[in-house]
Amino acid sequence: MTTLHFHPDPAPAIEAALHAAGRPRLFVVADDNTARLCMPRLADTSPAVADAVLLTVRPGDEAKTLGAAESLWQRLTDAGATRRSMILNLGGGMVTDLGGFVAATFKRGVPYMNVPTTLLGAVDAAVGGKTAVNFAGLKNQVGVFAQPAATFVSTCFLSTLPERELLSGYGEMLKHALLNGPGSLSAILDCHITSIDPSTLLPLLRESVATKEKIVAADSTEQGLRKALNLGHTAGHAIEELALAAGHPVPHGYAVAWGLVVALVLSHTERGMSTQWLYAVADGVRSHYGPMPVECSDYPALLALMAHDKKNSTPGSINFTLLDAPGCPAIDCTATPEAITTAFDIARDLV
Amino acid sequence: MTTLHFHPDPAPAIEAALHAAGRPRLFVVADDNTARLCMPRLADTSPAVADAVLLTVRPGDEAKTLGAAESLWQRLTDAGATRRSMILNLGGGMVTDLGGFVAATFKRGVPYMNVPTTLLGAVDAAVGGKTAVNFAGLKNQVGVFAQPAATFVSTCFLSTLPERELLSGYGEMLKHALLNGPGSLSAILDCHITSIDPSTLLPLLRESVATKEKIVAADSTEQGLRKALNLGHTAGHAIEELALAAGHPVPHGYAVAWGLVVALVLSHTERGMSTQWLYAVADGVRSHYGPMPVECSDYPALLALMAHDKKNSTPGSINFTLLDAPGCPAIDCTATPEAITTAFDIARDLV
Repeated sequence: MTTLHFHPDPAPAIEAALHAAGRPRLFVVADDNTARLCMPRLADTSPAVADAVLLTVRPGDEAKTLGAAESLWQRLTDAGATRRSMILNLGGGMVTDLGGFVAATFKRGVPYMNVPTTLLGAVDAAVGGKTAVNFAGLKNQVGVFAQPAATFVSTCFLSTLPERELLSGYGEMLKHALLNGPGSLSAILDCHITSIDPSTLLPLLRESVATKEKIVAADSTEQGLRKALNLGHTAGHAIEELALAAGHPVPHGYAVAWGLVVALVLSHTERGMSTQWLYAVADGVRSHYGPMPVECSDYPALLALMAHDKKNSTPGSINFTLLDAPGCPAIDCTATPEAITTAFDIARDLV
Repeated sequence: MTTLHFHPDPAPAIEAALHAAGRPRLFVVADDNTARLCMPRLADTSPAVADAVLLTVRPGDEAKTLGAAESLWQRLTDAGATRRSMILNLGGGMVTDLGGFVAATFKRGVPYMNVPTTLLGAVDAAVGGKTAVNFAGLKNQVGVFAQPAATFVSTCFLSTLPERELLSGYGEMLKHALLNGPGSLSAILDCHITSIDPSTLLPLLRESVATKEKIVAADSTEQGLRKALNLGHTAGHAIEELALAAGHPVPHGYAVAWGLVVALVLSHTERGMSTQWLYAVADGVRSHYGPMPVECSDYPALLALMAHDKKNSTPGSINFTLLDAPGCPAIDCTATPEAITTAFDIARDLV
C-alpha cells in the first residue's frame, strides 16, 4: 500500500524517499499553476526535484482527457522514461488522477508518488489509487486502480487557497470522520476550517487520510467495504450534477456535505441511527455551506440521476451507504423513492 | 487468478461460465477475421455468445493502437456497458492484448475472458494478464497487468491455421517445456506440431499453459520470477527486430526458438548446464525452423538491440534468463559482449 507522509513542508520527506528508492530518474507532472506556484518551493529544498523533468498540463478538470494522457505518454517516451523511473504528481485531484493513470499504464506501470496541493486533493484524490481521465463526456470513464508508492500530505500549499476550496475539502473530511467514529466526528465538527492554523490542521488531516487509507487497504478495487467511502455521494453527486446542469455549479465537497445530511436522515429512518449526530452534522453543514440548492420540483430529476449512478448493482434501484452509528457504515442499502424524497424534505428543513 | 479451461470446443464451457457469473451483459471483441470465422462457431452452441454485442477491430498488430482502444471505449459507452458487464476477447494475441487493455481500463475495470484462436495466442498472450497497445512506434508501450477472469484454450480453431503459425506457437511451447523440466521437454521435442492431432495436442497445451500460469501466479507484475518467461527472448527479440528492419520479418515464435538456442549455449558456458539438452533442443529447432537468419556482420546491431531491451536493469548491460538445467531457471544473468557473440557463433553452428 501507499506510504503516507504528513509534514508542514513535504520537500525533505520527498528528497529522503527518492534517496531511499535509489534516486530513480524523476518526472514531475504538474498543471501550469502548480508548476509556477508549488514546483519552485519543492525544488528549493529537494535537489532531486530540482533535477526532475517537468511535464506540465493545462489546469482544470476539462483538461483531464485522453489527449492529455497521450501527450504525457509521448513526452515520457521521448525523454526515455523506463519502468525504473519515478513520476511525481504535483497538484489537485485533476493532476493526481491524470498523472496516476499515465504512470500506471506507461510500459504497464511506472511507480508514482502524489503531492496534493489542495485540501480536497489531500483528503480524497491523492490517496486510494483511483486514477482516470474523463472520456465521452463522462467523468473518470477510463482509468485503473493503481496505488501510489507514497503520498506527501502537507499544509504549506493550503494557506493561499480560497475559502471555497477549503470548505470543499472539509466536506470529505466530515465524511471520513463519520466513518471513523464519534471522537473523530466531534473533532471535525469543532474545527473552523477556514481559520484553522496549520499545526492544528495537520493532525486532523492525518486522521482523515488514515481513515480512507484503512478502508482502501481492505478493499482496493471497490468490491465491498470501499463502498463505505460513498457515504453522502449518492445524493451528493445528484445535487452536484443538477447544479451543474442548471448553470450554477457547486464544489464537490459542498455537494457531499449536503448529501451527508440526506444520508444521515436515511440512516435514522432506515437503519435506526440515533438523531443526536444527525442534528450535530446538520448544524455544522448549515453553518458552513448554507441551505441546499434544491427545490421540491427538482426531486424527479434528482431521483433519475441517482438511479443512473454507476455504483447501483440492480438497474433502477438506488443504492446508498448509510450508518448504523458514526464509525459503523452499512453498504449496499436501498431506499424507495418515497423514503428518499422524504429524506430530502427533512434534510432541507435541517440545513 | 485466471480460471483455465481446456476443451476441443470451448463453446459449452463459455456458456457455463457466463451462466455461473450470473449472465452478465456480454460484449465480444474480435477482429474482422475472427468475427467472420470463429464467432459463428461459438454462437451456434452458446446462446449467451449469440446474444452478445459484437465489437470488431481491424486485424493485424498494426491495428493494436490507442485509436482502436478509443473506438472500443466509445462503443462500450454508447452501448451502456457497466462494471458488471463482461468482455470476451476472441482472437490472437493482438485481440487479447487490445481487448484486455480496454476491459481493464473501462470504468477502472470490467471483467474479461479470453478465447485464443491461434496457437501462439493460446500458449502466450491469452494467459498472464499482460495487456497493452502499441504507442509511438513501440510495442506494448501503454498497458496494464490485468488478469482475465477465464481463458478458454481449445483446438477447434487451430486446424485451419497455416504451418508457419503453428510453428510460431511451438516456439513458446518449447520455452515453457524448458522452464518446466526434462519430462515436458522430451514430450515437446517428440511432438510433430504441424501434423499433430487435436486429442494429442490438448494435453500438451494444458501443460504448457499451466507452466506459464504457475510462474505468473507467483509474480504477476514481473518483479522477479516472472522474468523466467523471458528465456530465449533477449536474443530472440533482437533477431526479430533485425529481421523486421531488414525487410524479412520472421514470426515471433521462430525468433524465440533461435533465441532459445543462444540462451542454452550461454546456460552451458555461464552456468554449467549440461550439453545434453542443448544438443537436443538445437536439433529440434534446426529441423523445424532451419538456420538462424544471422551473419557475423549482424553482431554489432544485435548487441545494440539487446542493450536497449526494456528489461535490462542497468543501462548498457545485457540481461538474460538462463537455465541451470531444464526446470531450473536463473533470472537476471548478465553476459559480456564477447560471451554473447561466441554464443551466437556456437548456436549458428548448431542449427
